[in-house]
Formats: sequence, C-alpha cells, structure tokens
Amino acid sequence: LSRIAYVNGSYVYHLGAMVHVEDRGYQFSDAVYEVVAVLNGKILDLEPHLARLGRSLAGLQIGSPMSNKALSVVLNEVRRLNRLRNGILYFQVSRGVATREHGFPNTEVKPSVVVTAKRLNFDAIKKKQQLGINVITTAETRWARPDIKSVCLLANVLAKAKANKNGATDAWFVDNDGMVTEGTANNAWIIKDNMLITRELSNDILAGITRHTLLSVANDLGMKICERSFSVVEAKGADEAFITSTTNFVMPVVKIDEQKIGDGKVGQVCKKLIKFYWNYLEG
Amino acid sequence: LSRIAYVNGSYVYHLGAMVHVEDRGYQFSDAVYEVVAVLNGKILDLEPHLARLGRSLAGLQIGSPMSNKALSVVLNEVRRLNRLRNGILYFQVSRGVATREHGFPNTEVKPSVVVTAKRLNFDAIKKKQQLGINVITTAETRWARPDIKSVCLLANVLAKAKANKNGATDAWFVDNDGMVTEGTANNAWIIKDNMLITRELSNDILAGITRHTLLSVANDLGMKICERSFSVVEAKGADEAFITSTTNFVMPVVKIDEQKIGDGKVGQVCKKLIKFYWNYLEG
Repeated sequence: LSRIAYVNGSYVYHLGAMVHVEDRGYQFSDAVYEVVAVLNGKILDLEPHLARLGRSLAGLQIGSPMSNKALSVVLNEVRRLNRLRNGILYFQVSRGVATREHGFPNTEVKPSVVVTAKRLNFDAIKKKQQLGINVITTAETRWARPDIKSVCLLANVLAKAKANKNGATDAWFVDNDGMVTEGTANNAWIIKDNMLITRELSNDILAGITRHTLLSVANDLGMKICERSFSVVEAKGADEAFITSTTNFVMPVVKIDEQKIGDGKVGQVCKKLIKFYWNYLEG
Repeated sequence: LSRIAYVNGSYVYHLGAMVHVEDRGYQFSDAVYEVVAVLNGKILDLEPHLARLGRSLAGLQIGSPMSNKALSVVLNEVRRLNRLRNGILYFQVSRGVATREHGFPNTEVKPSVVVTAKRLNFDAIKKKQQLGINVITTAETRWARPDIKSVCLLANVLAKAKANKNGATDAWFVDNDGMVTEGTANNAWIIKDNMLITRELSNDILAGITRHTLLSVANDLGMKICERSFSVVEAKGADEAFITSTTNFVMPVVKIDEQKIGDGKVGQVCKKLIKFYWNYLEG
C-alpha cells in the first residue's frame, strides 16, 4: 500500500489523501490518468507515458497542470517517499473543482493532480506469465473514445467483474462487427503461423505503451507483425494469444471463453517475447 | 452555493467536503447519483428518485448504503441546514474506497454517500421557458448503459461543451440509425399534429422522472402520446420540440442545429404543458 500520496501540491499520508466532492473527476469522470511501472527503483517508459497524458488532456481540452519536468519530479518524489523499489505509480489529472454543471466551467479552474504508489511483486507476475490467464469475451459497451485514457471506466469495471465472476482474469471487448477491440486495461494480441496480430490504432483502443514497445522488440527480433482487427473466431483458432499492459507486461492468454488456445499452455512465441521483453526492461 | 454538505455520515462545510482519492467514484466513475428539485422548501418527487437510485445501484451491484427512509432524513437535513427554499439537492453513492483494481473489491467496502445543495432561481427558469433554447445534434458517444444514472458522464460533458461552444444550450445524441436518443442530461421530445413523441424506454436512455410525470400530466389532459424513436430529420420538421429534466422541467427547444422549429418561437402545446406542469408542481 501507498504510504504517501501527492495531492494538489502536497505530499500527504495516503489515508488523508482527499479531493473535494465537486472535483469533476468525482462527479463527471472528467479526468485522465496514467500508470507507470517502477522496476528496481527506476520508472519505466516515463517519457511516452507523459506524452500520452498530454494527448489525453488535449483530447478533453484540459490544460496541462504542470510541465512534464515538474511532474517527473513529483513522481520520483512519491516513489522516493514510499521507498518504492518495485511497483507502480498512479497519476491522475482532473479538470478541477467547480460548481456542478456538465459543460466546461466558465471560470478558469486549476486541474487537480493526484499521485499514489503501490508495491507490486514482479516475481508473482513472472510466475503468472508461466501459467497464462483465461479471458472471456464481452460486447463493447464503453464510450466512443477509449483512446483517451480517462477515468470514464464504468464499462471496464463491469466487464472485469463479469470476467472474475466467470473464473477468468480479464474480458476482451468485442465490437458490433465481432472484432476484438482490447481488454479492460490492456491490448489484445494473437499469434498465427508466427505472425503477431494486434488491432491497429484508432479511437477504438488505447495506444498502449507496452504495445508500442513490444512491436519494436518484435521488429528487432525479425518477427512478422500485422496491425489489424481480428475476430473472436479467429482468436479462438490462433496458435497463441496474449495481452500487454504496464503491469502485466506480456501475459499469455491460454483460454478464451473457456476454449483452449493451441494446446492450452503458454506457447513458444509467447515465451520468447516474455524473455526478450524482460531483457529489454532489465538490461 | 451549498454551505453544508453531507459526506459519509457527517454534515460538513461545503469547502471541506472531501472524499478519498481512491474512492471508486473518482478513479473508475463507479458511482450513481440523483438530483431532486426543492420548491418552496419541499423536495419534489422524492419517492421516484429514490426508486431510480435503487435501480441504478442494483445495475452496478452496489449495495444500498442506507434505507430510503434514512436517506430522506439526510436529504431533508441538508436542505434544512442550507435553508434551501428553491434549488436542488445532489446526492451520489459510489461503490466506496478500495485499493485501485478494476474489478469489484474482494473485501466488503462501504458505499460512499455525498449530498450537496444548490440554490436555483426558478423565476429565471420560467423566463427561459418563455424564450426556449437552442440545441445541436451530435453522434451518440456514451457508454452502453445511460439508463443507469452513473457519473460515467465524460461523453455528456464533451457534448455539452460542444453545444456551448456553438452557441447552443444543449446537445441531443443521435444513434447509428440517425435517431435521437436524448439530451446530455434530459429527455428529448417533439410535437407533431398535437401528438407528443418521445423515445421509448430502453437501455439507451434515462427513465426521466419529469418525463414520466409529464406523460401522466399529458394523459390527464387527454393529449395524444406516442413513445417511439424519432430521427433528426423528423425533429427538424416537427411543429414544436422540448426537453424535460429535474432542473429544466419542460423547456421548449426553438432551434435544432440552427434550424427553426415551427416559427422558431415557443409553441402553443409547449405553453400549455409548461402551465399545467407548474400547476402540478405548485398545486
């Protein structure tokens, strides 16, 4: 658990980390966020995460609360104050506090900034990578702009809860055409005949940082890559499947809707990607 | 402005009304809400609002934080402490505070309850009812369950901001079939040949309390009513149009996308509905 959080200019005890009830993040999901991994005391991929935060803010026409340099200082200070060696930093920027009214506030409001820390056991994640996870598929129910990393996440919450209830770790959203968009907080991938397939970037999915990094790792390895949509049927007939995210890195998917992918065990290509991705992160 | 708010068991000064940063309402839009009007010191339609809150909570599998009777006491106490004669009470229930994880918390968490008050000038609303408002139309971008009155409202925020930017008061969402769903925080209606037309209830729209009450008022008046979808084209060719909501009551729409509805002035049927609705509320 986080012991120290940052809230609007102050480093405070986590238990006392509070925001106003009229913070628009609380009443309108009018806020964006990022999660960065901390490995051996170092924040991973900070620059692309900050760049994406900037794009999300711009997408909602929220002004930047501080420079990327200042935000980096805050993030590292939260990391340091929590003595965080391995885990994540969560940071959220909302439009700020204003009298409740759907439209943008008429007066200038200051965006709210919150940063929290959480310890993670990466060895446990490495163990999970050897076993893989199960996912279910579920109808796409999110709002139209999941490419903006906002806290408008209620559909994700319900999909994840549905997955958990059905003994699965996550849910893949499926659009009206029967094509997989992405997971509740991760990008979806399949492998067929040694080809890596993941949906092309658009308003329909988040431009995952791990997705981006893995594409370049795979490219360096000389692997075949195709960025295109794939259907649930195609996914179930794939040789292997996996998800990517900041906290899962490369996580094999061994069952989709209770159906085994390949022989239902973590495949050779996934193993290779996991190995090279850890080399990339640790090396 | 609200002077006193209720937050999780305490009546506190509005400025100090705070919730934890890991309240799921703040990080996941995992919360529902209601707005009730207070007229001459009396809360209007409290029972149906409480019933809808119950349905919204059930839709998200959030347990009831307190009995309707207890919640009524809290609402009336916030009204009393703010000496609120005319205005609104806003009340929100979130799933509660838990370490950030998309799925439902594993441990039992207590839902958070927040109530705020705001003064409104109903005479100003009555004046606005004589002039009518302009709306724009915009593509439906909300998540799949706007019938659940949740704070997952980012699409509503952006649509309302777009309307304001274009000199309009509100935006009507239009689904993939070109049919109007509803406004950003209100139900949409048109009148053609003295027939009241408003979209039928489904997962696609909120079951408005004012919508419901007006249907019964119109029925008592012997008016023709049809609950069905209507297109943007049909709306622009209607004789009259209006919206209903807790804070707008019956508000005429005189322009859609800059196009005049009828002669661009508030029509006779709207005037009649406004009159009878105020009679119903005040009488």
